[in-house]
Amino acid sequence: MHMAAGMAEMAQETDNSPQINGARLLRRLQELARIGANAQGGIDRQLASVADIEARAWLARCWEQELGLTVRTDAVLNLWGEGAAGTEPGRKPLIIGSHHDTVPNGGRFDGALGVLMATEALQSLQEQDIALRHPVWLLSFAGEEPNGFSISTFGSKVLCGRLTSADIAKLKHRDTGEPLMAAIDRMGGDAAAIDSARLQPGCFAGFMECHIEQGRRLIDAGETAAAVSCITGIYREVIAVAGEANHAGTTLYKDRRDALAAAAEVVLAVESLIKDPALAGVAATIGHLEVSPNASNIVPGAVTMSLDLRTADPDLRKQALAKLGAAVEEIAARRQVTITRTLNLDQAEMPMHETVRTAIHDACVEAGQRDQLLVSMAGHDAANMARLGPAGMLFIASVDGYSHCPQEFSRDTDVVAGANIFLRALCLMDRRLD
Amino acid sequence: MHMAAGMAEMAQETDNSPQINGARLLRRLQELARIGANAQGGIDRQLASVADIEARAWLARCWEQELGLTVRTDAVLNLWGEGAAGTEPGRKPLIIGSHHDTVPNGGRFDGALGVLMATEALQSLQEQDIALRHPVWLLSFAGEEPNGFSISTFGSKVLCGRLTSADIAKLKHRDTGEPLMAAIDRMGGDAAAIDSARLQPGCFAGFMECHIEQGRRLIDAGETAAAVSCITGIYREVIAVAGEANHAGTTLYKDRRDALAAAAEVVLAVESLIKDPALAGVAATIGHLEVSPNASNIVPGAVTMSLDLRTADPDLRKQALAKLGAAVEEIAARRQVTITRTLNLDQAEMPMHETVRTAIHDACVEAGQRDQLLVSMAGHDAANMARLGPAGMLFIASVDGYSHCPQEFSRDTDVVAGANIFLRALCLMDRRLD
Repeated sequence: MHMAAGMAEMAQETDNSPQINGARLLRRLQELARIGANAQGGIDRQLASVADIEARAWLARCWEQELGLTVRTDAVLNLWGEGAAGTEPGRKPLIIGSHHDTVPNGGRFDGALGVLMATEALQSLQEQDIALRHPVWLLSFAGEEPNGFSISTFGSKVLCGRLTSADIAKLKHRDTGEPLMAAIDRMGGDAAAIDSARLQPGCFAGFMECHIEQGRRLIDAGETAAAVSCITGIYREVIAVAGEANHAGTTLYKDRRDALAAAAEVVLAVESLIKDPALAGVAATIGHLEVSPNASNIVPGAVTMSLDLRTADPDLRKQALAKLGAAVEEIAARRQVTITRTLNLDQAEMPMHETVRTAIHDACVEAGQRDQLLVSMAGHDAANMARLGPAGMLFIASVDGYSHCPQEFSRDTDVVAGANIFLRALCLMDRRLD
Repeated sequence: MHMAAGMAEMAQETDNSPQINGARLLRRLQELARIGANAQGGIDRQLASVADIEARAWLARCWEQELGLTVRTDAVLNLWGEGAAGTEPGRKPLIIGSHHDTVPNGGRFDGALGVLMATEALQSLQEQDIALRHPVWLLSFAGEEPNGFSISTFGSKVLCGRLTSADIAKLKHRDTGEPLMAAIDRMGGDAAAIDSARLQPGCFAGFMECHIEQGRRLIDAGETAAAVSCITGIYREVIAVAGEANHAGTTLYKDRRDALAAAAEVVLAVESLIKDPALAGVAATIGHLEVSPNASNIVPGAVTMSLDLRTADPDLRKQALAKLGAAVEEIAARRQVTITRTLNLDQAEMPMHETVRTAIHDACVEAGQRDQLLVSMAGHDAANMARLGPAGMLFIASVDGYSHCPQEFSRDTDVVAGANIFLRALCLMDRRLD
């Protein structure tokens, strides 16, 4: 019954479905990919870099000249394209977009695809004289990726109130030493008015972001796109092992308290979590590790490392941390080293809003995609926007799951088909959201 | 019969045994320890540092003004104190000494004790009008410790021809970028004449170096000193693991080729070597490890690490490397990562010269020390000098085996008793060597 009703609604809604201009979208993807392109085939377009400045100018020109929008940079450098009015006066806007920054040596699709797909969707509506009930605003978030200022999803964290001027005042670029406050002013933001960028809950009708999946679930199944059910929770610790530095030649095994050997066991204990079928859906990684004194002829005295643990299920997180805790205690006791674990980040999972999720999912199924929802195992600006109002995400297939690297790639056919799904989902959101 | 004969010789040789001035030796140890002293209680006196310059000036003043020696710096910065003539014209010199540089945040005894003990021995002979058959030269080697120029036992390597001007021309300081050639000239050496510093085999009658043990064998047995039988062979590799960097959230376990998890298994495989009773006498350490890209949210794509493997027994080395090789191959195959091992250093074990070793051993036993010889599990300048002529070493007890750290300590009583053994051994060498 439900399916039949859904099909009937879809059939009605499909009438005169607008289509995006695939060639234009692919051309813009190529053009934006030139900004910050490096010799390794990757892109360096981190927050507040020269390439970030150039990308902003490129986007502003596009939005102003090709879409006739009013472009503004808010106090924390989020780039807004406004002016596409809705047919029903007083409606709050639908916000669509993603981010244009990259990790160092990143790829051409992460962020850029979402911004350009939103741009294409709005322009296609304009060209085909299809007016939505709601105004539509374009948004390219500032500093979504981890960067030299040690902050990710920077712009959306400020929008939703998770990051304030007091937090930002503490941050400096780890290489250049430039305070983030100074970078904000240099880039056209307003460091003195940071907290004014914060949005009030309920200030928009809906938010949608398209992003590459950054995994292999879609590509391995031969699918183009899917709606996201939930954005993973991310939990991070710094794990520090304190042993005793000593001479690599003269210190017998019985006298060693080798911090690196202990850390090696911790690394394998973390890996054992993701091998455990009982913990399916948990990702756990030691991605960062530093040895001290880190000399070939000295038994390591100390190691610090990062734990990154993700799951959309708080119970699984609890089980994984309990298992890890027991392993770490056993390692420390047996090796007579001290292992200190310090919480660094504890970001709860964020379910996507039902109406937005369903609009995206319906658009996918209507376009012949499998009836499925995916958990996003990466964090996204959409998780911050979900604190303010109805938010959802569309995932596009990533070839071989490559992400944050020059090999990152989504096929033209998936990009174009995904953009039509995105536009269709936007129309459904417009009809279904207040 | 042999023991009785030895005792008789000793009894004869013991007549009028000269004694060192313990108070003066301890005072000089304190004075030299002030040069490069840092706020952590350690010493920073690396090759070509300001403290190295100051220590050289301090030593030169002592040797010139208090011992009346002629001090010269050779082309590669070894510091020589010459002029103490022997009674038999034409005899080649006995060379005694060690080094005055330290590792970063090193201790007060490693190197300094050997230089000052040699100084004290010669001065005591002078004061007590005891003339040896051979001239006696003091020597403080340049850059014995690992340093920013990525070279250890620098001065003695040049003396024995293991390091040439062509090698040295390639080295730059990793922090300052200063070429070693430039540092040599700046410090009073002669970069254009490096190869002139090389010594010819047979150019000295004997060489003796006193050094702290840097282990716990003497201190745990309640002993003060022992002669060294052999200096360990040191074998070093760079082990590189190539996996695949990928997103820490979206990359499933089955799709990971985590270079750090593989490296963790290599670290534990190396540790398993020194836990193996069949490989007793082998030291093996992973002391240096770097992760790439080393970001908390990226599965590590590459790891490089150092293997340091030491033993005085080439057969044990072979067995240890075979065991490690099998383990590494298994890890690489199972994890589908590439593990590349590159030889970095293959320094054969170096037995001490029988006459010198016996002189030192006899002096130890005569002073009430246990009848034992120790393998040196650290490398020393003496291993390079042994390529040129008869060389030996005396070890002094290290409290708790601490070394290369501020806690490095040898008790006053052991220092003074050790210095008397050293002087006695010098006299025995003088009688027994050509």
